[in-house]
Amino acid sequence: MSKLTAVFPGSFDPVTNGHIDVIRRASKLFDTLYVAVGDNINKKTLFTANERKLLIEEAVKDLENVKVEVFSGLTVSFAEEKGAKVIIKGVRSSEDYNYEYEMAETNSHISPDIETLFMPSRPEYFFVRSSTVKEMVKFKADVSDIVPENVNRALLAVSDG
Amino acid sequence: MSKLTAVFPGSFDPVTNGHIDVIRRASKLFDTLYVAVGDNINKKTLFTANERKLLIEEAVKDLENVKVEVFSGLTVSFAEEKGAKVIIKGVRSSEDYNYEYEMAETNSHISPDIETLFMPSRPEYFFVRSSTVKEMVKFKADVSDIVPENVNRALLAVSDG
Amino acid sequence: MSKLTAVFPGSFDPVTNGHIDVIRRASKLFDTLYVAVGDNINKKTLFTANERKLLIEEAVKDLENVKVEVFSGLTVSFAEEKGAKVIIKGVRSSEDYNYEYEMAETNSHISPDIETLFMPSRPEYFFVRSSTVKEMVKFKADVSDIVPENVNRALLAVSDG
Amino acid sequence: MSKLTAVFPGSFDPVTNGHIDVIRRASKLFDTLYVAVGDNINKKTLFTANERKLLIEEAVKDLENVKVEVFSGLTVSFAEEKGAKVIIKGVRSSEDYNYEYEMAETNSHISPDIETLFMPSRPEYFFVRSSTVKEMVKFKADVSDIVPENVNRALLAVSDG
Amino acid sequence: MSKLTAVFPGSFDPVTNGHIDVIRRASKLFDTLYVAVGDNINKKTLFTANERKLLIEEAVKDLENVKVEVFSGLTVSFAEEKGAKVIIKGVRSSEDYNYEYEMAETNSHISPDIETLFMPSRPEYFFVRSSTVKEMVKFKADVSDIVPENVNRALLAVSDG
Amino acid sequence: MSKLTAVFPGSFDPVTNGHIDVIRRASKLFDTLYVAVGDNINKKTLFTANERKLLIEEAVKDLENVKVEVFSGLTVSFAEEKGAKVIIKGVRSSEDYNYEYEMAETNSHISPDIETLFMPSRPEYFFVRSSTVKEMVKFKADVSDIVPENVNRALLAVSDG
Repeated sequence: MSKLTAVFPGSFDPVTNGHIDVIRRASKLFDTLYVAVGDNINKKTLFTANERKLLIEEAVKDLENVKVEVFSGLTVSFAEEKGAKVIIKGVRSSEDYNYEYEMAETNSHISPDIETLFMPSRPEYFFVRSSTVKEMVKFKADVSDIVPENVNRALLAVSDG
Repeated sequence: MSKLTAVFPGSFDPVTNGHIDVIRRASKLFDTLYVAVGDNINKKTLFTANERKLLIEEAVKDLENVKVEVFSGLTVSFAEEKGAKVIIKGVRSSEDYNYEYEMAETNSHISPDIETLFMPSRPEYFFVRSSTVKEMVKFKADVSDIVPENVNRALLAVSDG
Repeated sequence: MSKLTAVFPGSFDPVTNGHIDVIRRASKLFDTLYVAVGDNINKKTLFTANERKLLIEEAVKDLENVKVEVFSGLTVSFAEEKGAKVIIKGVRSSEDYNYEYEMAETNSHISPDIETLFMPSRPEYFFVRSSTVKEMVKFKADVSDIVPENVNRALLAVSDG
Repeated sequence: MSKLTAVFPGSFDPVTNGHIDVIRRASKLFDTLYVAVGDNINKKTLFTANERKLLIEEAVKDLENVKVEVFSGLTVSFAEEKGAKVIIKGVRSSEDYNYEYEMAETNSHISPDIETLFMPSRPEYFFVRSSTVKEMVKFKADVSDIVPENVNRALLAVSDG
Repeated sequence: MSKLTAVFPGSFDPVTNGHIDVIRRASKLFDTLYVAVGDNINKKTLFTANERKLLIEEAVKDLENVKVEVFSGLTVSFAEEKGAKVIIKGVRSSEDYNYEYEMAETNSHISPDIETLFMPSRPEYFFVRSSTVKEMVKFKADVSDIVPENVNRALLAVSDG
Repeated sequence: MSKLTAVFPGSFDPVTNGHIDVIRRASKLFDTLYVAVGDNINKKTLFTANERKLLIEEAVKDLENVKVEVFSGLTVSFAEEKGAKVIIKGVRSSEDYNYEYEMAETNSHISPDIETLFMPSRPEYFFVRSSTVKEMVKFKADVSDIVPENVNRALLAVSDG
């Protein structure tokens, strides 16, 4: 069988330990794992797409088969471009699941040869959403144990600014 | 990266077109896919474990990298024995998901190096459970388009017997 | 348009005020409403199918377009026999919904021309299951306001017996 | 029994094959089915309320008992005005269901004599939301098999514009 | 054991009979119950934080151990300030639950000594959201039986204005 | 306010670290916490009700305000007998929640003055069900970190026997 490439797409504004956990676990399964940082001009973000990419790259620099890239457009188009057969999504609650199931069906309709696989989030990361991290930082709550160290520094820098 | 082996476990009493769809799609992703037919002596089944194995083998005989085996005991033990890093589960509704999430966490606790990945069932197989198939056969309803042809023949033989 | 007939199937062991509410509301929409009392010989019930039928008939005797019948076999076969285009189901929680959705898809597969429609249970009947009623009676709890009066009398008679 | 009229309300921006399927199935049950196109001035839409109405009318012009109208205000007020006893809603996932259940209870509180009935979406339309259609069009993905032909033409015209 | 203080946080824009029911039931369990009215400058509200506070105070003025206060910032910080060990949340559907579970985990992570407890909403208040109340008022629907009398008067005053 | 007593009911066959966590957290909130071990003669258990009681007592012997008792009958009757105003339940997934919500409504109907409060399970105990523990023991999997030490010893003794 030819090499298996997967894509892990998201906004990652910012990347959390929950995302990093999925990246580490997925990197053990696939020959190449692309972390695809969505650049959506209609969505206001705390960090630019390139900043988000650099934060992830630094946090997973020990993982040789992980590549981080910015993309815009459809996830399936990015996957096709990279020759990826798999889109991997971390899933937590059943509400997450309902949403992701619909997305997976949409993607399967557009590109039937690309499979979406769901990787269950570890329970300790159940509550760790990027939006929650930003809300916690806004109120000066400590997030050092739910984001990578470099992301924590970046958040403190932004929040002090 | 070394070859990637996955296990698709279940009772398969009998295998349905929903299962076959997951097997076909998963067989394109992994170097070897083991379909693991659970032999649970405490559970009454319509077909014996060996009959269920033979029905699956016949239905997917064109897929060279798929192996069908009977097992008892924990799924993770079977996976370890085969050198599989992945357990693949087909998931339909959010109720399914809640159940499978718990199973995946149990398995991850016992064998942290084996990942459970969820493959969303295609919507057209949403209602196709093995138990529904048996109920339909009991009431003489036609199941020829929701199970493989050889399974349909086996069901008619059992039901006429 | 020809007259519209609907079927409301269930075990009704015993009928509760939740069921009666669905029957009353549905009877205002359809020309004829069949309450179909399932007779499943493999399922142990508190009341016989005929007793359950009589209890419902007495409780809704003021509704002229409601007919109560015992049936066995598939609900869609009963519906076809009666010329019914609609199967009506009362639905409460999302867990109920997931189950009923699957049933509806199975039925639609067998008989594409019969539609299953879900009628939301009124919140005050949310917790009123037949099994809960029986459990409450077992422990001598009062059920007089969650079942029809004649059912309450029948339950007290059985429980004293 | 007097004639049974139903209302199928929505934004329909644009109408999809999922909506059309519900309209076709519901039109077989009710004497008259009103498709009620919500005109909400606070919500930005791709097509005007009147354009949406015309697109639906063209797509179901073969259904003689279906009438399409623009409305604003409460759905139950529109239903009362038309003498409709039923509001019909297509429901997909359990998340949909939770939302629609709440809406149905609100409507039942305002107008106790109007019943909301849920019609399960066919699985093949599970992922087909109007918002998904618009997102797909934005990225030049083909939507010709998930919207009616005239809607596809209208979408291409808007998207080329 | 020292006295038990609880916090019931929310936007309360406006307070509904569903909220009042939770306040009344919780006030019987705890020595002091703080109703904490969130003042979020980024969120547009119908009533100011102080108006919302006054409306609640008037509606529960017979409950001596209930105190109503405006707060901004994290709920757990407010709880710590008041020496409260419990945050109480009313929960309705499973969708509500998934959301509140995540919030509770976030709060538990920030302040491990404060417990979030969920109080199930009575079914008759299942559909009563503040946002629904405002939507109903906008369309001149009667809300007098789902909000306290003083809130109804305030809504009519605002709506006539 | 008078002292606040709570009941934590269950089968506890056997008690797990998930249960112990709820007991420890709840014991900090209430003056007295009764752990109520259900003795249901129709349900086959691994340990007798008295054995289950003794295992819990040993595991929480450092908690002075926790009392463990065997009971049969309705939970609300036990609560009334103990003068408890609160029934506390640990809740995990939304499926759990739907089930517990219904139970809480039933109990509220029987005894309106007793409140059921849900305490969210810590995520690390999400998968820890008593039934899972027994299944794991059956297949010789290690459960020493998901049950208390004395329960582990008891399970090994039973499993070797």
